Amino acid sequence: MEREHFSRHFDEELNEIRNKLLEMGGKVEQMISDAMKSLVDRDSDLARRLIATDHQINHLELEIDEKCLQVLARRQPAARDLRFITLALKIVTDLERIGDQCTSVAKRVVELNEEPPLKPYIDLPRMSAAAGTMVKEALDAFVRGDAELAIKVCKEDAFVDGLNDQIQRELLTFMMEDPSSITRAMKLLYISKYMERIADHATNVAEMVIFMVKGKDIRHTAPPSGEIA
Amino acid sequence: MEREHFSRHFDEELNEIRNKLLEMGGKVEQMISDAMKSLVDRDSDLARRLIATDHQINHLELEIDEKCLQVLARRQPAARDLRFITLALKIVTDLERIGDQCTSVAKRVVELNEEPPLKPYIDLPRMSAAAGTMVKEALDAFVRGDAELAIKVCKEDAFVDGLNDQIQRELLTFMMEDPSSITRAMKLLYISKYMERIADHATNVAEMVIFMVKGKDIRHTAPPSGEIA
Repeated sequence: MEREHFSRHFDEELNEIRNKLLEMGGKVEQMISDAMKSLVDRDSDLARRLIATDHQINHLELEIDEKCLQVLARRQPAARDLRFITLALKIVTDLERIGDQCTSVAKRVVELNEEPPLKPYIDLPRMSAAAGTMVKEALDAFVRGDAELAIKVCKEDAFVDGLNDQIQRELLTFMMEDPSSITRAMKLLYISKYMERIADHATNVAEMVIFMVKGKDIRHTAPPSGEIA
Repeated sequence: MEREHFSRHFDEELNEIRNKLLEMGGKVEQMISDAMKSLVDRDSDLARRLIATDHQINHLELEIDEKCLQVLARRQPAARDLRFITLALKIVTDLERIGDQCTSVAKRVVELNEEPPLKPYIDLPRMSAAAGTMVKEALDAFVRGDAELAIKVCKEDAFVDGLNDQIQRELLTFMMEDPSSITRAMKLLYISKYMERIADHATNVAEMVIFMVKGKDIRHTAPPSGEIA
């Protein structure tokens, strides 16, 4: 009876960590989407609001860290639960840094909106949508312990990398043909880089999830674009 | 007697984690210094050797992660030791990503060496030296539990950010004055960004160390360049 009570309470604590992570993930996904919306709509107000909400993400990171430490100290979990909690500790760091990348995008957007638009954006929104999906799927894979979904995320990273390469080449051509476009093109290049980095964070999370589920570490062992499982 | 044996062995395990982290840190510092040396000396062989050794860093990350999990599972440490181990888990991720940044620098160096040099490098080596010192000090602060040293690292980040801003401005001028310099200037801009990011990782580590020692989290609460303690 004691024991049952203990384990029910323990499950609740793990669920709390899970839910807080999903809450943080949801906020971060919203930031990714708002950052791109503020670029496409030239909406500096939205960009500024995004920058102002970054502290919520930071606060959630500290809260989840603290909760994980408490559970580790009080419950002394073993095996699978231990892996879950230590992974949660690593994942919050990735989520927090995705928030930072979104803030960086928003800052470049505010600057860009002070000058006339350079070109219509086609690939950047596609990149942002793909990166947002990857973050969502990586977190879903984590909370559900779904290795297949995590493998899917790892494969999607190549798509985002490809878009980034394409954007870099295109903007480089702009810069060479018209030096007056350089400062604006540079800011767009950075935005593309930030998005690529968000996808990298999602991939890092997904790789760790595969490790958690399969007990086998594919980080640093998978061929660049080949089979992962 | 039993207990003494237990705790002596436990201390050995914590020491092993500490030493492995220092080993990883030493390798990463060498990579930072080699990456810059390969740029300044236009030494593509050194850059390629650096890229080839990145797997050692990746291997150390997995090894330390595994060791931390083992100690958490078997020893069920409390309070300070628990914080030390969970922090080690986070720090290896930062170290591994610093290794990635060095690899990225080395890749740009190989590309740059296929073209004539754009300009002599003055600020980039200063940036790299500062970033390398920050990584070393952040790790020393961690293994010694030295909050003062960690605070010093956080303050140094502003210096690296300043150098990065200066390099960005200078290279932008190059690009505008001579569009034929754009592709080379872009690669140098990226190298500067990679170095700035290495300093950011060191700062992240230092902030976490301050938390470990003082039990107070300064992450996300410190004013940008003000007093931290």
